[in-house]
Amino acid sequence: MDNEPELQDPGFGTKITTSGDRLINKDGSYNIVREGEQVWTAYQSLVEMSWSSFFLYVVIYYLGVNLLFGIGFVIIGVEKLSGVSPAGLMDDLSAAFFFSVQTFTTVGYGAVNPQGIAANLLASADALVGLISTALATGLFFARFSKAKAQLIFSKDALIAPYRGTKQMSFQFRIANLRESRIINLRASVILSWVETMPNGYTTRRFYNLPLERDKINLLPLNWTIVHLIDDKSPINGWEPRDFTQNQAEVIIFIEGFDESFGQKIHVSSSYTCREIRWNAQFLPMYYPRNGKTVLDLDAIHQFEFLEE
Amino acid sequence: MDNEPELQDPGFGTKITTSGDRLINKDGSYNIVREGEQVWTAYQSLVEMSWSSFFLYVVIYYLGVNLLFGIGFVIIGVEKLSGVSPAGLMDDLSAAFFFSVQTFTTVGYGAVNPQGIAANLLASADALVGLISTALATGLFFARFSKAKAQLIFSKDALIAPYRGTKQMSFQFRIANLRESRIINLRASVILSWVETMPNGYTTRRFYNLPLERDKINLLPLNWTIVHLIDDKSPINGWEPRDFTQNQAEVIIFIEGFDESFGQKIHVSSSYTCREIRWNAQFLPMYYPRNGKTVLDLDAIHQFEFLEE
Amino acid sequence: MDNEPELQDPGFGTKITTSGDRLINKDGSYNIVREGEQVWTAYQSLVEMSWSSFFLYVVIYYLGVNLLFGIGFVIIGVEKLSGVSPAGLMDDLSAAFFFSVQTFTTVGYGAVNPQGIAANLLASADALVGLISTALATGLFFARFSKAKAQLIFSKDALIAPYRGTKQMSFQFRIANLRESRIINLRASVILSWVETMPNGYTTRRFYNLPLERDKINLLPLNWTIVHLIDDKSPINGWEPRDFTQNQAEVIIFIEGFDESFGQKIHVSSSYTCREIRWNAQFLPMYYPRNGKTVLDLDAIHQFEFLEE
Amino acid sequence: MDNEPELQDPGFGTKITTSGDRLINKDGSYNIVREGEQVWTAYQSLVEMSWSSFFLYVVIYYLGVNLLFGIGFVIIGVEKLSGVSPAGLMDDLSAAFFFSVQTFTTVGYGAVNPQGIAANLLASADALVGLISTALATGLFFARFSKAKAQLIFSKDALIAPYRGTKQMSFQFRIANLRESRIINLRASVILSWVETMPNGYTTRRFYNLPLERDKINLLPLNWTIVHLIDDKSPINGWEPRDFTQNQAEVIIFIEGFDESFGQKIHVSSSYTCREIRWNAQFLPMYYPRNGKTVLDLDAIHQFEFLEE
Repeated sequence: MDNEPELQDPGFGTKITTSGDRLINKDGSYNIVREGEQVWTAYQSLVEMSWSSFFLYVVIYYLGVNLLFGIGFVIIGVEKLSGVSPAGLMDDLSAAFFFSVQTFTTVGYGAVNPQGIAANLLASADALVGLISTALATGLFFARFSKAKAQLIFSKDALIAPYRGTKQMSFQFRIANLRESRIINLRASVILSWVETMPNGYTTRRFYNLPLERDKINLLPLNWTIVHLIDDKSPINGWEPRDFTQNQAEVIIFIEGFDESFGQKIHVSSSYTCREIRWNAQFLPMYYPRNGKTVLDLDAIHQFEFLEE
Repeated sequence: MDNEPELQDPGFGTKITTSGDRLINKDGSYNIVREGEQVWTAYQSLVEMSWSSFFLYVVIYYLGVNLLFGIGFVIIGVEKLSGVSPAGLMDDLSAAFFFSVQTFTTVGYGAVNPQGIAANLLASADALVGLISTALATGLFFARFSKAKAQLIFSKDALIAPYRGTKQMSFQFRIANLRESRIINLRASVILSWVETMPNGYTTRRFYNLPLERDKINLLPLNWTIVHLIDDKSPINGWEPRDFTQNQAEVIIFIEGFDESFGQKIHVSSSYTCREIRWNAQFLPMYYPRNGKTVLDLDAIHQFEFLEE
Repeated sequence: MDNEPELQDPGFGTKITTSGDRLINKDGSYNIVREGEQVWTAYQSLVEMSWSSFFLYVVIYYLGVNLLFGIGFVIIGVEKLSGVSPAGLMDDLSAAFFFSVQTFTTVGYGAVNPQGIAANLLASADALVGLISTALATGLFFARFSKAKAQLIFSKDALIAPYRGTKQMSFQFRIANLRESRIINLRASVILSWVETMPNGYTTRRFYNLPLERDKINLLPLNWTIVHLIDDKSPINGWEPRDFTQNQAEVIIFIEGFDESFGQKIHVSSSYTCREIRWNAQFLPMYYPRNGKTVLDLDAIHQFEFLEE
Repeated sequence: MDNEPELQDPGFGTKITTSGDRLINKDGSYNIVREGEQVWTAYQSLVEMSWSSFFLYVVIYYLGVNLLFGIGFVIIGVEKLSGVSPAGLMDDLSAAFFFSVQTFTTVGYGAVNPQGIAANLLASADALVGLISTALATGLFFARFSKAKAQLIFSKDALIAPYRGTKQMSFQFRIANLRESRIINLRASVILSWVETMPNGYTTRRFYNLPLERDKINLLPLNWTIVHLIDDKSPINGWEPRDFTQNQAEVIIFIEGFDESFGQKIHVSSSYTCREIRWNAQFLPMYYPRNGKTVLDLDAIHQFEFLEE
């Protein structure tokens, strides 16, 4: 992420408009609809879905595959399954389904076992599919576990507030690490984007890197308040709340760092629109000393108070 | 990738010729034949082959290994497999094969089970090979899944086109992400390579970094049109289509970025030869606003129109 | 990690105090208490706990899950388990527990096997839970194994000692690699932090990068003695032992490198407080030649001797 | 790796001597003996040993663990194993061993199955150990497979040869990729190390970065000849073969790059001592055109010819 103040667009192009909506969602995803032929990304979906959805898929797959094999054994004929005596269709299917489960999972009690080439071949396929499925599931579980989902939390609101008790106004928000993990070498980029009407009546989207009081820290043991000083050179110098609204302004945040627990680089993004900027307010402290220790209260990250004018 | 304009070769050497063929294939691989003793790279092959080939290998391995163990049990004598009564050779082999499958997969119904030291030892080896094979397969499945195959798509053709409605000509192509994944911090290098005949009659291959209007973007939410302005300093200033052909010219592209979904750096390369460069044409738009949203149409990436002179 | 001498704080803020305690513990963790809602990090805990704790959890889980399924089978009725004849509750539970073990592990001897829909469904669930648990365990084992826990050892004490026999005093400590692995491209940052009382009576914590004789090495075949020369510009020039104590001074160390065996970047940190700094002492050699080879004695890393005045 | 010419040592220290031996072995490992308490690195050993050793360990472990459990079942009494009738000790042990194998691998034919609490508990432990062992093996297989062992090959000898037909002498060696994989962004550092006798009779080891004609390439499709020009500033300007010997000189090579197939940074090192430097010789070509293609012959990497004076 470069830090030259006037920025060519970070990749959105200058023709994009948002009509009151946003470029980047709060969770960092793009507010863009994709059409046309894409690459199907089963792996990515299965890794990124919630744990409850994932387990649901696992159970549905388990039941579905065994039902299919069960139907296969019924077609071959349950009389080929030693230990099952043919009864009605549902009973046969039930017996065949449970035999498939015992084969797929490689439990293989043996009270039921296949006779003849066809049933044995189908059982062999069933067991192979079971082993492959387990291999796939193992890989997916590991990928889900080991994915470094950085749990950086952003304050819900950004503030326009005096800087450290001076009269100098500043744009501020803060972040903290929701995990016990160590995130190091953090860098922040804050980009202001707005739509400008040109003299010829055309509109163009502009992007501007907001200079920061500090754009990197080595460690994140507590919280980090990221501050842009609204001095003479700042593009938002003199802006009123309605300027943010009219200009479709959006402050886009990129944070990168290195998560030691996962041994991976992390990248987190978010944005603040006019609806999430509070004027003349200041954040309340998040940490305090207690018995010679420093205590960090993560629940306090969103807390601020309005200042009297 | 350095960006000094005049470049020492990126690794091909100055003596390499292509005789109308190319240095780098469209898919980014080298157009070079390797001979002599190499390191056998079973892992790499098994990870990079298509899923259908991979499953075919798995099935062939499964059948082959169990056939070998089945032959082993026949040699020991199927009378050592309790539950099997010796019949003709094919029946014995069939029974022994399915017993091996039940052991290899660790299903172990038990309707057939080994008697005596020899059969038990062979069954123990069979089960161990089964476990090891499953372990190997699990690792391979995970490696195949977790390999960040960047699905960047390049426009089929590069264009020689006026730059943004001006009279300034430019060399252009564009890329987009076929996946839903986030690729960030992309950098592009575009190298022109051609063969030059020296005054003494020798030929030498030259390499030249084409300066780009922009050589990096932070995000790739839409498409990225990569543009080289053909100004006075450009080595292709004044070239005609036949110059590209005669000089064995090739434009080599390197793109690097970071894939957030896989947490890995990605590197993609491709090239354009004279047969893939269109003169006096311009790309058609790939995205448009709809209901306040921006829609990206991936199918439109290759679409361009010729300009009237 | 930047190396400009006067440093903005590395992330602790200027208001933090320690009252004789420390900012960073010897093992590199932060001496900070976290409160409020955090993200539960089962994965991280399971990966970072000791092997004995991990195996204990595995055994408890194994017994617990099978006990639950065993109770389930007792509720359904052990008469639904063919091969078990109902006896007292404890006998039934024992039989059901062992049947569950045989199903969960997919051993499935078959001497006991389920009859009827309910028992078969529960057994199917048991086997699925077994497979999933094995998949999870496999992922956890691999994550535990492949985590590059750099085994850099720091000398217990830092020394204030003359530099290489000159009269120039220096601050020194040393590190070595406890593993046979190759760590390359090491960089060290040494930050002095102390609390200063301002003229207005307020206290502020200051951070200062101590310049090093060498802040990086390419290889770590032996030990590395990291040296800060206490010259005129050094902030600790003229300090006495009591200055360290009164100023709540702490020397914070960050080491980064690349572990070739694990293919991962490593980051290690530690700190020295006044209680771990020895004055007027020098380290004893850690390596010596023997039969034309160089021998490194890792046990000697902490050894130093006091100098006579 | 820094490239300032006069170099502080890369980590060996200035007091190390080699007495005709070397600092770095041909395979890149350090020629140093480590003593004292180290961290046991079972994982690293198991990952880095050869495949044949690894499989041998697996088989020994498999036999050993099942032998131990077999002895356990014999102690409990084989009459607790339904299906086994007590015979002599060896027969009992054999039956118990194979029963353990069937349990450990989770095959569980069931022809033999445990009776009573003690035998069932031991069988439960056996199956758990089997599952854990399989999980461990799976992780190890994957780690072994996915470890990016760069297969860069160095020419056996380095040459002191005229540079490209000029009279300018140069120090040369060459590398190539034994694998089909893509290695990109390679950088080379070449360090000359020698022992110098100071005026006071002490000896000190010196290290000097040899400037290279090119110290990086983007791709390695063919071979890379790495060249240091022996000009006026070169520390080996005017050296004779005996200077290399007397000064315990050694040329240490570090290569780093990025292996696209494994998605990992790679680091390879080696060294040349006086015994591996040929004077007045030049490498023979490794690639040639054939049918419009370029053919690379890997077997030719070591081939050179002596020049007539």
